[in-house]
Amino acid sequence: MAATAALRDPAFPAQAFPPPPVSARPVDRDAWIAAFRFVRAETERRAAPLSPEDQQVQSMADASPTKWHRAHTTWFFEQFLLREHLPGYQIHDERLHYLFNSYYVAAGPRQPRIMRGLITRPTTEEIAAYRAHIDRAVETLLAQAAPGALEKVLPILEIGLFHEQQHQELLITDILHAFAQNPLHPVYDPAWRFPQATSSPGAIELAHGIHQVGHAGDGFSFDNEHPRHDTLILPTSIDRGLVTNAEWLRFMADGSYTRSELWLSDGWLAAQAEGWEAPGYWQPGEQGWTCMTLAGRRPIDPAQPVTHVSYYEADAYARWAGRDLPTEFEWEVAAAEGGLDDAFGLVWQWTRSAYTAYPGYRPLPGALGEYNGKFMLNQIVLRGSSVATPEGHARRPYRNFFYPHQRWQFTGLRLAQSRA
Amino acid sequence: MAATAALRDPAFPAQAFPPPPVSARPVDRDAWIAAFRFVRAETERRAAPLSPEDQQVQSMADASPTKWHRAHTTWFFEQFLLREHLPGYQIHDERLHYLFNSYYVAAGPRQPRIMRGLITRPTTEEIAAYRAHIDRAVETLLAQAAPGALEKVLPILEIGLFHEQQHQELLITDILHAFAQNPLHPVYDPAWRFPQATSSPGAIELAHGIHQVGHAGDGFSFDNEHPRHDTLILPTSIDRGLVTNAEWLRFMADGSYTRSELWLSDGWLAAQAEGWEAPGYWQPGEQGWTCMTLAGRRPIDPAQPVTHVSYYEADAYARWAGRDLPTEFEWEVAAAEGGLDDAFGLVWQWTRSAYTAYPGYRPLPGALGEYNGKFMLNQIVLRGSSVATPEGHARRPYRNFFYPHQRWQFTGLRLAQSRA
Amino acid sequence: MAATAALRDPAFPAQAFPPPPVSARPVDRDAWIAAFRFVRAETERRAAPLSPEDQQVQSMADASPTKWHRAHTTWFFEQFLLREHLPGYQIHDERLHYLFNSYYVAAGPRQPRIMRGLITRPTTEEIAAYRAHIDRAVETLLAQAAPGALEKVLPILEIGLFHEQQHQELLITDILHAFAQNPLHPVYDPAWRFPQATSSPGAIELAHGIHQVGHAGDGFSFDNEHPRHDTLILPTSIDRGLVTNAEWLRFMADGSYTRSELWLSDGWLAAQAEGWEAPGYWQPGEQGWTCMTLAGRRPIDPAQPVTHVSYYEADAYARWAGRDLPTEFEWEVAAAEGGLDDAFGLVWQWTRSAYTAYPGYRPLPGALGEYNGKFMLNQIVLRGSSVATPEGHARRPYRNFFYPHQRWQFTGLRLAQSRA
Amino acid sequence: MAATAALRDPAFPAQAFPPPPVSARPVDRDAWIAAFRFVRAETERRAAPLSPEDQQVQSMADASPTKWHRAHTTWFFEQFLLREHLPGYQIHDERLHYLFNSYYVAAGPRQPRIMRGLITRPTTEEIAAYRAHIDRAVETLLAQAAPGALEKVLPILEIGLFHEQQHQELLITDILHAFAQNPLHPVYDPAWRFPQATSSPGAIELAHGIHQVGHAGDGFSFDNEHPRHDTLILPTSIDRGLVTNAEWLRFMADGSYTRSELWLSDGWLAAQAEGWEAPGYWQPGEQGWTCMTLAGRRPIDPAQPVTHVSYYEADAYARWAGRDLPTEFEWEVAAAEGGLDDAFGLVWQWTRSAYTAYPGYRPLPGALGEYNGKFMLNQIVLRGSSVATPEGHARRPYRNFFYPHQRWQFTGLRLAQSRA
Repeated sequence: MAATAALRDPAFPAQAFPPPPVSARPVDRDAWIAAFRFVRAETERRAAPLSPEDQQVQSMADASPTKWHRAHTTWFFEQFLLREHLPGYQIHDERLHYLFNSYYVAAGPRQPRIMRGLITRPTTEEIAAYRAHIDRAVETLLAQAAPGALEKVLPILEIGLFHEQQHQELLITDILHAFAQNPLHPVYDPAWRFPQATSSPGAIELAHGIHQVGHAGDGFSFDNEHPRHDTLILPTSIDRGLVTNAEWLRFMADGSYTRSELWLSDGWLAAQAEGWEAPGYWQPGEQGWTCMTLAGRRPIDPAQPVTHVSYYEADAYARWAGRDLPTEFEWEVAAAEGGLDDAFGLVWQWTRSAYTAYPGYRPLPGALGEYNGKFMLNQIVLRGSSVATPEGHARRPYRNFFYPHQRWQFTGLRLAQSRA
Repeated sequence: MAATAALRDPAFPAQAFPPPPVSARPVDRDAWIAAFRFVRAETERRAAPLSPEDQQVQSMADASPTKWHRAHTTWFFEQFLLREHLPGYQIHDERLHYLFNSYYVAAGPRQPRIMRGLITRPTTEEIAAYRAHIDRAVETLLAQAAPGALEKVLPILEIGLFHEQQHQELLITDILHAFAQNPLHPVYDPAWRFPQATSSPGAIELAHGIHQVGHAGDGFSFDNEHPRHDTLILPTSIDRGLVTNAEWLRFMADGSYTRSELWLSDGWLAAQAEGWEAPGYWQPGEQGWTCMTLAGRRPIDPAQPVTHVSYYEADAYARWAGRDLPTEFEWEVAAAEGGLDDAFGLVWQWTRSAYTAYPGYRPLPGALGEYNGKFMLNQIVLRGSSVATPEGHARRPYRNFFYPHQRWQFTGLRLAQSRA
Repeated sequence: MAATAALRDPAFPAQAFPPPPVSARPVDRDAWIAAFRFVRAETERRAAPLSPEDQQVQSMADASPTKWHRAHTTWFFEQFLLREHLPGYQIHDERLHYLFNSYYVAAGPRQPRIMRGLITRPTTEEIAAYRAHIDRAVETLLAQAAPGALEKVLPILEIGLFHEQQHQELLITDILHAFAQNPLHPVYDPAWRFPQATSSPGAIELAHGIHQVGHAGDGFSFDNEHPRHDTLILPTSIDRGLVTNAEWLRFMADGSYTRSELWLSDGWLAAQAEGWEAPGYWQPGEQGWTCMTLAGRRPIDPAQPVTHVSYYEADAYARWAGRDLPTEFEWEVAAAEGGLDDAFGLVWQWTRSAYTAYPGYRPLPGALGEYNGKFMLNQIVLRGSSVATPEGHARRPYRNFFYPHQRWQFTGLRLAQSRA
Repeated sequence: MAATAALRDPAFPAQAFPPPPVSARPVDRDAWIAAFRFVRAETERRAAPLSPEDQQVQSMADASPTKWHRAHTTWFFEQFLLREHLPGYQIHDERLHYLFNSYYVAAGPRQPRIMRGLITRPTTEEIAAYRAHIDRAVETLLAQAAPGALEKVLPILEIGLFHEQQHQELLITDILHAFAQNPLHPVYDPAWRFPQATSSPGAIELAHGIHQVGHAGDGFSFDNEHPRHDTLILPTSIDRGLVTNAEWLRFMADGSYTRSELWLSDGWLAAQAEGWEAPGYWQPGEQGWTCMTLAGRRPIDPAQPVTHVSYYEADAYARWAGRDLPTEFEWEVAAAEGGLDDAFGLVWQWTRSAYTAYPGYRPLPGALGEYNGKFMLNQIVLRGSSVATPEGHARRPYRNFFYPHQRWQFTGLRLAQSRA
């Protein structure tokens, strides 16, 4: 595991989260309230360095304003938890429902995604008041709910907490994208540094055989990790280490951004259309390449893992190297065998697996059924977690997913080789 | 002239602006400093009700953030006045040049217009500091410049003041557009009301004859009002009053938004593509049509002049009425003859004149040559002024211009009829 | 007047067209039938060198297939003449109505313009049969109509003939555009040569004074030439000759396609977006610039008038030369005074006049009211005629019009200078 | 196997194709020449009902003109076979190389795909001459090549034949798309009928176990069917029959095109943007739904398998039915066990498998390496074959692939259900 990044504040006790299993008996109300406070506070901690103007901006359709993340995660608890489960609950402001619903069609119409940045009111301060209102109501619910009610409440609360953690990561990647559009290169945190990579050489070998993949145990999981099922792993070697900036610079020096034979057809079109010559946020400087970071624009460190690469670039890199990206199950089995360095906490790792449903998968009932299932096409699975992922959020069976052209996340890769 | 609108604050003495003619002898430095302060203060007064979030947003490519208007008008003085004419002047921050140049190609590269809303830093407060810095420097220059230097400085100062007034109007129309995207209908000024129209019936008749049009006298004018020249007016009648909401509702009731024969071909395409069924910002409410205003969403007042109509709509209205829009010269001559009610201060009035150069027109030398001339195509002249136009800004020969599909300005119309 | 171009076939007697005035007494049926045959034959003569494949293609939204031109001009007679005025007339094929209506909303729905090239059936041969069917019916009508009926028929017939001539020109410019997309540079007519220009040096001077412009007399005219009316001409000099390729090459050599200060703002955007570096169809060759022509790709002839330039380029050229384009009325008065060389038959000449209605203009009643009036915005008037214009079609008051970015027509310019 | 459709002409002996295995000893030159003639003649037979105009048209970016298919398949033999392997071969026309290269970047620049329909020259007749020229040269090569040379020639010839068969299918689907844009509903073959479906009820059950998938044996295969490898099949049931029009009408009657919860997110966006209310080419008629077919517009036959559905629709249908689409390997194993009706010859069947490389896959060396590998992203595997697929072309391991929004192919589905 990588060293602690600046976003991790040791003042928050690591043991405060995750909460106890939903099914634990007796239910530990205090532990759940502590977990709730922990997660909610982390969102505010991440937003704290940002001015009201910073929190307002939406720099592209894929990104959302900080303010919106803060409000949407709050709306999630109001919509799915308080509306139904807190007797006598008064909606904070009915008009916010339209503004802060993200994509839940079943929950009604919503502000078009591309227009999230136009909502200057409610202000940042009013969003803070909204958060405080919901925080009080949720804590009231947790403190006072009858045991039977708690059984229904806790699974929703738990998904709300993990949902908010996902937005904590997006809050960071989205403001980095916005700052990267500004020729002044604003700084989110001057002390921030990318963690050092472990980078052991060599590879772990997986033998031909059937393994179980997907979530097991009584901890939290998302629906897309289910059902746990058998999979056949073919003989495969997976590198222990991540691909580094030094290796990526060799790939670039070999002309790879101008050699169509290394690229998927759609990837070549994207690279040409976008004018890609290097990973995202890289710019040539007087002393070599630089990258926009949370600490502003910085020189490239050759020893760090490469990040802000799209799937198309990761795929071209693997082809150039005569290797493959691992499948998501090769990654999961290798990680379970303890063979991967830096599996978590540095960069999400592109696999070569399309994001699709596990055999027998069925989405959650109700509006939360839209959470994951409806996105199961055209995207690629990433495994691990990144420097922006909240502590305790990711696990081995966790499936992240993005479109193959996207590169504003902290996305990197490790290589593998499979044999039939 | 219409009654004073809320934007006019009687605390500012009306006599403080406009400044004395540039050519006056002796030069009245105090009057110029007062004029400068007056104009600069008006910008701040218009921005004052807006939160930092409000000032950040750019709701479409045609609009700009409040913050950007405040900074760009400031950059204008720094770029065209202080850089060259204040000895020893230190640029406030060289990096702002790229951000706040609007369209002056000769002044170097600039932030793409569509990306003005992404610049969260400098913050609103830093913009205020930038303004204060420039204010001090300009006042120093005005107080200390030798008489010979003043002769060069004053014409640039004057254009800078009128330029800032143009942005004062845009600041208002642009934030209204942003607020209109927000389903919460934010209020800029709860006390704001559209001024009452005078609305005399009848028309003024212009006889066949040669008139002079364009700027005359020693007051300020823009280059596009020159040269003053002869024009032939054909027999024409022009209505004294503006077209009102009541009249527009009759036009709508006659199905006019669905009758292609009333529309120019390009106008019909625009209306269909944009789904126009009424003027801009109109929405059906439970008690009839409403319009987004500076005081929030309000019922339509039938007695007020219609506003937020595009040229395409104004043209269709005239065709429906069996009338014409006046040419810009018909308007100018009729106004000179005192025959027009509400010529100023309510709505800009679409003419049927394409915005082109006057015969013999040549743009200003240097970078300010880009001010007006390069836009002399594809746009339509509007005459008069609107409720958002700063006091003292508009004059009879003043030529405003917008594209025929645009309708976020306070644009209306009066009818005419010409005979060959 | 320029020498005869290859498209003019001397086998057609020049006196056969135009037909006698509509109001002539007694009506000369034979002359009208001869005129009808003359015009219809000219369309076929222009299509004759083109294969069925050539006649099928639509190379951009602004252009139409040859086959479509042949059918649409035929539909025009069927729709506006035969349907109403030939007793017992049987529609050739009701299904063609949808396909070959161009833009007459009052005549019902129609094939989207952009999809004209997808209509492979009816075939070219079937279009020929459609033409023959209509030809017979029209001749029957002309031969048999009672005198009272003829009075209604002849004005429609006449507009149909001039309408067909307009499409004869488009047929040529549209196939040239299609051929220009083909790297094989197909040849329409190997013997075709651009006519030599007369190119007298010097200019004609127009004095300050009122002139009448617009159509006069009892010959044919379009509605947009009316009403004839007074206009004031300011002192102006207009060059006798057209701008030549040699002059344009000097403009290019001066870097004018890369100097934004020479361009209108919208023109500069168009030039950058389209990558303009020279007039339309120009490509650099081993021995200098070449141009796609009806005889295939040919070296530029410096003595010929420049053609395939947009309004934006013509305007930039005038600015570079420190001159103006003439207004449409300056052109018309100068032409009436006999001062212009090559006014007709080489290239349409951009004026600086926006295409708008003459004072008091009202469109024709009925569906033909859509002919001209609804296009009176966003376009620029061109005067004269081109090498592709049918003999006898253009006249001094004739107003052609295109959008300022278009350059697939034979469009050039002459310079002028106006003084207030 | 479905009954013979009109495209199958019994005059062509079924035994003439496929050719003997490349590795057969001794090489049967006559059989290869016969196979070559058979395939080439089939292309011409499919083009024969089409006029030159029909063969010219490109009705969307995904489709190509008939003429282009005829020329491109010919270019393929010239480029990859004759250029290198026929001593002294003279290129037919060097200029055709640019026009008829499809997507082989290594083979040089090429006509932009979207502009294939603009190439009116060479004409249809000239394409026929090009085909005849290449046919003679290939036959010469096959007759005269030394045995050692033949070893290199035959694999290229073979891929050229299967390549041409792929274009034979596209020729049909592309002209059907073009005809579907024509309100006259042109008829390709009045005698054409969709073959009757077998439609047995019930399903085949697959047990948990490891199977081999991918190509085996010495017959022809594409690179994307390799390497043959182990796969784990989970317990699955697959329907014997295809989904029929009758079943699809029930899906429609249940409001499924307006219920977002049945759709993938990207699918819902596509359906809304395109206005889908039924499968492709369906239109409501007076007696119910009709579909554009090769015999013109015809009433929907409830007993036939549904076709012209996109993956998004197929996926929504499966969700509505509470079922799944099979994976490509479930399909392949079930087909091998003889459990599928109508696996071939009616409609390609969407699987739920993303189109990706088999483990250890490496593309062919040289320019033909671009054949399949570079498209292995963002597309979905279809298995089986369709009514437009040439006889003898498809096999069980054959992998067809299209983007999930595409529906101009003959694409349908069968349902399955997998259990972890």
